[in-house]
Amino acid sequence: MEKFKIIFYPDNKTIEAEKGVTILSAAISAGIHINSSCGGDGVCGRCKVILKKGQAVSLPTGRITAEERKKGYYLSCLSVAQSDIEVEVPKESRLDSETISDEDAYMLRLKGIFSEPVDIDRGEAIISEELFIHSPLATKLYLELPKPSLEDKISDLERIYRAIRAIQDTPVLQTGIANIRRLGELLRSSGWKVTVTLGKRNGTTEIVIIEPGDTSGRNYGFAFDIGTTTISGQLIDLNSKKILGTKAAFNKQATFGSDVITRIIFAQEKDGLEKLHHAVIDEMNVMIQELTQENKIDLNDVTCCLCAGNTTMIHLLLRVDPTYIRRDPYVPTANFVPVIRALEAGIKVNPRGLLDCVPGISSYVGGDITAGVLACGMDKTDKLSLLIDIGTNGEIVLGNKDWMISSAASAGPCFEGSGVTCGMRASKGAIQKVKIDPKTFTVEYSTIADTQASGICGSGYIDIIAELLRSGIIDRGGKIDPSLTHRRIRDGEYGKEFTIAFKEDVGTAADIVITETDIENLKRAKGAIYAAAAMLVRHMELSFNDLAQIFIGGGFGTYVDMPNAVFIGLLPDLPKEKFVFVGNSSLIGARQILLSHDAILDAEEIAKKITYFELSVEPNYMDEYVASLFFPHTDLSKFPNVKI
Amino acid sequence: MEKFKIIFYPDNKTIEAEKGVTILSAAISAGIHINSSCGGDGVCGRCKVILKKGQAVSLPTGRITAEERKKGYYLSCLSVAQSDIEVEVPKESRLDSETISDEDAYMLRLKGIFSEPVDIDRGEAIISEELFIHSPLATKLYLELPKPSLEDKISDLERIYRAIRAIQDTPVLQTGIANIRRLGELLRSSGWKVTVTLGKRNGTTEIVIIEPGDTSGRNYGFAFDIGTTTISGQLIDLNSKKILGTKAAFNKQATFGSDVITRIIFAQEKDGLEKLHHAVIDEMNVMIQELTQENKIDLNDVTCCLCAGNTTMIHLLLRVDPTYIRRDPYVPTANFVPVIRALEAGIKVNPRGLLDCVPGISSYVGGDITAGVLACGMDKTDKLSLLIDIGTNGEIVLGNKDWMISSAASAGPCFEGSGVTCGMRASKGAIQKVKIDPKTFTVEYSTIADTQASGICGSGYIDIIAELLRSGIIDRGGKIDPSLTHRRIRDGEYGKEFTIAFKEDVGTAADIVITETDIENLKRAKGAIYAAAAMLVRHMELSFNDLAQIFIGGGFGTYVDMPNAVFIGLLPDLPKEKFVFVGNSSLIGARQILLSHDAILDAEEIAKKITYFELSVEPNYMDEYVASLFFPHTDLSKFPNVKI
Repeated sequence: MEKFKIIFYPDNKTIEAEKGVTILSAAISAGIHINSSCGGDGVCGRCKVILKKGQAVSLPTGRITAEERKKGYYLSCLSVAQSDIEVEVPKESRLDSETISDEDAYMLRLKGIFSEPVDIDRGEAIISEELFIHSPLATKLYLELPKPSLEDKISDLERIYRAIRAIQDTPVLQTGIANIRRLGELLRSSGWKVTVTLGKRNGTTEIVIIEPGDTSGRNYGFAFDIGTTTISGQLIDLNSKKILGTKAAFNKQATFGSDVITRIIFAQEKDGLEKLHHAVIDEMNVMIQELTQENKIDLNDVTCCLCAGNTTMIHLLLRVDPTYIRRDPYVPTANFVPVIRALEAGIKVNPRGLLDCVPGISSYVGGDITAGVLACGMDKTDKLSLLIDIGTNGEIVLGNKDWMISSAASAGPCFEGSGVTCGMRASKGAIQKVKIDPKTFTVEYSTIADTQASGICGSGYIDIIAELLRSGIIDRGGKIDPSLTHRRIRDGEYGKEFTIAFKEDVGTAADIVITETDIENLKRAKGAIYAAAAMLVRHMELSFNDLAQIFIGGGFGTYVDMPNAVFIGLLPDLPKEKFVFVGNSSLIGARQILLSHDAILDAEEIAKKITYFELSVEPNYMDEYVASLFFPHTDLSKFPNVKI
Repeated sequence: MEKFKIIFYPDNKTIEAEKGVTILSAAISAGIHINSSCGGDGVCGRCKVILKKGQAVSLPTGRITAEERKKGYYLSCLSVAQSDIEVEVPKESRLDSETISDEDAYMLRLKGIFSEPVDIDRGEAIISEELFIHSPLATKLYLELPKPSLEDKISDLERIYRAIRAIQDTPVLQTGIANIRRLGELLRSSGWKVTVTLGKRNGTTEIVIIEPGDTSGRNYGFAFDIGTTTISGQLIDLNSKKILGTKAAFNKQATFGSDVITRIIFAQEKDGLEKLHHAVIDEMNVMIQELTQENKIDLNDVTCCLCAGNTTMIHLLLRVDPTYIRRDPYVPTANFVPVIRALEAGIKVNPRGLLDCVPGISSYVGGDITAGVLACGMDKTDKLSLLIDIGTNGEIVLGNKDWMISSAASAGPCFEGSGVTCGMRASKGAIQKVKIDPKTFTVEYSTIADTQASGICGSGYIDIIAELLRSGIIDRGGKIDPSLTHRRIRDGEYGKEFTIAFKEDVGTAADIVITETDIENLKRAKGAIYAAAAMLVRHMELSFNDLAQIFIGGGFGTYVDMPNAVFIGLLPDLPKEKFVFVGNSSLIGARQILLSHDAILDAEEIAKKITYFELSVEPNYMDEYVASLFFPHTDLSKFPNVKI
């Protein structure tokens, strides 16, 4: 078979590809993560590369403009080399990781549940101390053992068991053979002073690690939220409960498709599952490396990880085939996953460290929602509550401590800053608050961490659409008024667009704009979420007015302007006091579970209690969705307080 | 470093050895198992080889006779090559495995506990059915699961848990990630009909294996007794409780020393632990291979193994450093070893199959004794009982259901047929019963399985010494009367010897004899055991006459002539009705534990209950031992019924 050499810039990576292999596939083999929301079907147009040298051919596509073609742009998923070639992967096509600075993490902290924002990076009290007893997934216990004598001759292992049981009640103690093999020498060389790490493992207690001396002061864990679009990781001091650092990065699985369905299909290809698995664990391992190095923490002192994620993400994390999640009747392989060694999933902490996953509810409502319900305390309140988690899937939970029902709607990643022209994650430089003067169309905005703007995050888009509506720039269908002429309004490649910030003002390569296509995507996303919430409430023969509180979760900003979210019809028309923005409630819940065995038990109860309502088989859902494809809604009587 | 080539015959194996490496070490590296009871110290004289070609030098030794030297004999542990050499390893120096034929196994079955011998190989009822509820270490359960539907959407794993719990109460269920990874495909391709293997694992239940279809009819396990000198293995049908076959072989660790102390010292050498570990598991794997092949059983259907052995043997089996067993205050790393996967110890059955070890009592009283006590039912009886297990170590347990105390004495392997000139294991061809005419010195004997004699087993030696005493051929010190002249009596290499069978009559290479050195070794062995039993009884302020029953265990024959054992002073002078010969009680107990969870619990209770009495620190033990170095004893008043 003929082979061509392909060099990718700016990475300067070379790979040999068989003739006929797409440039996208070659890039993946070379370890270069190109954005490909549609999974390589030539539909999304996000995987553009620039041919610098050599010959290539491409299938026809409307995703490359004439001007781009002149500059050598190709859609990498539709193009193959005809000779040795050199290509550049432009910044906008890349899925590179960004990490959240400490300052960002501070901005992204839990707001709303506490009256005062708490300073997590500066060492103040963090979360829910009053809710759960401090008992982490793995605890360290320093033991000074009595030396054996002719009067006290129990074996080394039983000596350790006896010392542990003198301190705490642990009926079923387990130990792996690896620990036993080192035990005799270890106890004697350490002078009978050792630290045992006790892990909670499926109803038993395991002696996970035995170390010489007193290391009990150094016990760390990671909480992860593994989202379809974004992975967030947090390093926690398991003794003090302090958050030592937080990072977030785009989930590089996006190379293989932007939504879970595309990825499940990809998993069935040769090595597909392996690639998806590695995309997520590699990113997690980078976060673990960076956060431990920044905090000067030895990886061996990281004794456990706790992951929340939707059901597909957890399957892929554990390298479990997700095929049956998307096959009728949509049953996952496991909702309750046993605690395993992190290394069994490829997570590199202490080689004997543990990995636990928050139990999920169904194929489309995962452990991230269980964690979110836990974080919001829905399972403890009498009040009728609604949790709306706005991610790539929009998940909804309705209920209180007596009952809970959930549903999920495919919303797309717009509100996480993906799949929209100038979208970005809610991190430093993201436009998050926007005002537009209805007369002059002057735009005022603020960015996260008040740095120069580099893109727009979810909360920014909510404001922008609300303001464009109020100013009459767009109509209720989302179209820009064709009669308007203004320097901010112009015809772009994908229809009309409105400029939020000019490149000369902010120093970006291009203007920061919102296009009609972006607005269409955002409208579909908000419509899917609103319709799902409405269906669920109606299914329980309730109305939105019966709700006492509505929790809004998701990674779309450090704050959300609730009246604006109502104004565009993302959220129901209720008084703003009823809304509580909880941010990444999945990560908060994961952290609570990492830190408290009580929270594990509560999470199990929540996952068992929540029933699942399948929207796709509900005949009215499509009607409800279509009716939601206006701002705020086709039926304005549903939004009596919105004056438009 | 200069190297020499060494070729070993009859194996025809060649190895390059560095100059200065002993021929014994080279043989070990070549995988040839040479007998070396003393561990290569030049003391035992059992590692002789014959130099066929080339030059070698040897340290001086009294273990090679002038005649042998002429024939080219060298002690391999004291000799090194001076050029490329070729050596022959004669049969008597080899530690080759023998296996017990079905017929032998039948002969070796448990006698005494049952009034009638039961035909274990012919499929009759076997053991103690009335004692323990049938609940093997691993059970198979065939499940026909309801297919998931929109009304019944629990995940695959929970579906299996639910089905198991509908059949039996299993509060803590565990599953490894390997099973979960295969689960989705397996359930669907099998039409939701699967067999789960449930293993008992440290107080929890593990789903060990999940297989398609109904394999519940095929569930097998192995019981092993791992002795210092002999390893016995038994293949059991876990459904029917039938013994499908039994094998025994010399423990090839003997290459590195005949007793546990020598082996513990060897374990500290480079790769020593690894070599000792492999010597035992390789032998076990051969037995597993052979027994499964003979019974046409797939290795994957062998789901668990249960091992009884002394504390050192269990440490070496699990590759746990035994160093501290022989260091004051003699504490093992673990007496209660957790259930692990057999593969973690290198045992090749189903790769996910389990390995459990019978809990031990102390460094010198191991799980083999726990198993023996269980097999004898000492923990269930009011009667004051004594168990004497005659192995390389003689272990003694005294007590009843209310209390038990144990002790151990180093006896040497004579009664197992090792360390005596014509000794052999109690297998086909072993002389097991002997009569000597006191006038003519004519010898009558019978062999196991009534085949031609090839050596003498433990019970044969007991008879021979008793008969030599009765006939006046030896005195109470064990010396052959120097005034006697008879064709059966002659001067041998190591003092006088008495011929039991002439080579021309039985077709052996040499006459089958007992030497004065053999008698001396047997006298020391019986003296150590008797003295230990006497010390233990005295320590509890009891006398032998208080005993209601005495169980005699060990692999020295298919029967033991109890009056003869009393006559030579191995056993105390009590009426023969009080003695019960139980054979390999360790293997019987291991089998009971393999077959019943109740027996596991009982064994744990036994191991916790038995206290250990350390003879070595007891000042009177040496006096008691020295007084026992006569037949039957220095103090004949202790043997009033022995007329000598």
